Amino acid sequence: MGPEGFLTTLPQGAIHASCSTVAPDTNRRLAEAHQQHGSTLVASPVFGKPDVAQAGNLWVGSSGPTEARQRLEPLQAAFGQGTYSFGDDAGAASVAKLCGNFLLGTVIEGMAEALTLAEKAGLDRVAFYEMLTSTLFNNPIYKSYGKLIAERHYQPVGAPPAIIRKDMNLVVQEAYKQGVPMPFANIIRDQLTATVALNEQDVDWASFAERVAQGAGL
Amino acid sequence: MGPEGFLTTLPQGAIHASCSTVAPDTNRRLAEAHQQHGSTLVASPVFGKPDVAQAGNLWVGSSGPTEARQRLEPLQAAFGQGTYSFGDDAGAASVAKLCGNFLLGTVIEGMAEALTLAEKAGLDRVAFYEMLTSTLFNNPIYKSYGKLIAERHYQPVGAPPAIIRKDMNLVVQEAYKQGVPMPFANIIRDQLTATVALNEQDVDWASFAERVAQGAGL
Repeated sequence: MGPEGFLTTLPQGAIHASCSTVAPDTNRRLAEAHQQHGSTLVASPVFGKPDVAQAGNLWVGSSGPTEARQRLEPLQAAFGQGTYSFGDDAGAASVAKLCGNFLLGTVIEGMAEALTLAEKAGLDRVAFYEMLTSTLFNNPIYKSYGKLIAERHYQPVGAPPAIIRKDMNLVVQEAYKQGVPMPFANIIRDQLTATVALNEQDVDWASFAERVAQGAGL
Repeated sequence: MGPEGFLTTLPQGAIHASCSTVAPDTNRRLAEAHQQHGSTLVASPVFGKPDVAQAGNLWVGSSGPTEARQRLEPLQAAFGQGTYSFGDDAGAASVAKLCGNFLLGTVIEGMAEALTLAEKAGLDRVAFYEMLTSTLFNNPIYKSYGKLIAERHYQPVGAPPAIIRKDMNLVVQEAYKQGVPMPFANIIRDQLTATVALNEQDVDWASFAERVAQGAGL
């Protein structure tokens, strides 16, 4: 953002659609720099694994000035199946994205604890996963992450543990700033820290489920 | 189960389908008493709120001796949309039921933390709930429990906090017995304990989401 930064290469009136998962305040500061330069930031984080992106089926969050948001919509529709607007605040879509990733983490830890207990109590881990995801939790998120956890095989890699550890740290930092105790978020961040400390990089971040299995001696 | 117990009123060859949520070992002991008496226990716990039961759309778990399980299936089909067998061990269906209730608890705490952070960071709580449950978490469980949490209005009562606190205690006890650390389960049990200690009985158990909101000053 300095005198040699990328803003100097942007024409006046340009719109920068940032898909990165960053702290809400980071996008707010970036939006301010754009405004001073005469360009506009639209926060445009996406939800979905690489295969979902390839199929053009991402879910897209969007926040920033109304006119810029509207101009972006046809572009967002090219890679997403739906765009959800969170209003003018450039930070708002980042909040939504962080909360979404946090909820994915709760699915992973929850399924890991449930499947580990079930297995140790004598149930077939994979059969129980199939029952759960064809009844109460009949949902693509539970099916896709749950399969990795049920089979304890964490390929293909959607996102590696180190990347999502960064996101979970942003969740915990935003929770601290806003004054929200989030016990689940702390646990998920710690599980990812342990996963990264064990140098597990070539696996999906759902592999933090192994911390639960290993803690139970499986 | 003593000399004046209900077993003495059962004819030989009778099948007792127990829908209660109990510890796996409780059903195993009950199955043994039945065997000595000449009758049979089939554990038959159900998933679903009262309105789901009225519509005959429960999901039913089933475990116990094969022949008895098969004889029960037409009866279970009368109140359920599907029956899942977990084999001969009378305790197995109880494990599945406890794990299912635990996973519902993770949905409640997860949504409570996410919606509380989102609201304090400037998002509309209900709009964000609607976005989540029409994209990543498009699922009846997230929609029904999430609505109670988004609106902070915990009626109608599916099950009161004291009942599910008992279930979460059974989860934690089974986890202790099986040697499974379950940090999420501990948190949920404590949230329900606080809810009961505050004497909140005439609300759905999802009202433990208020512990998160109140802790954040909302």
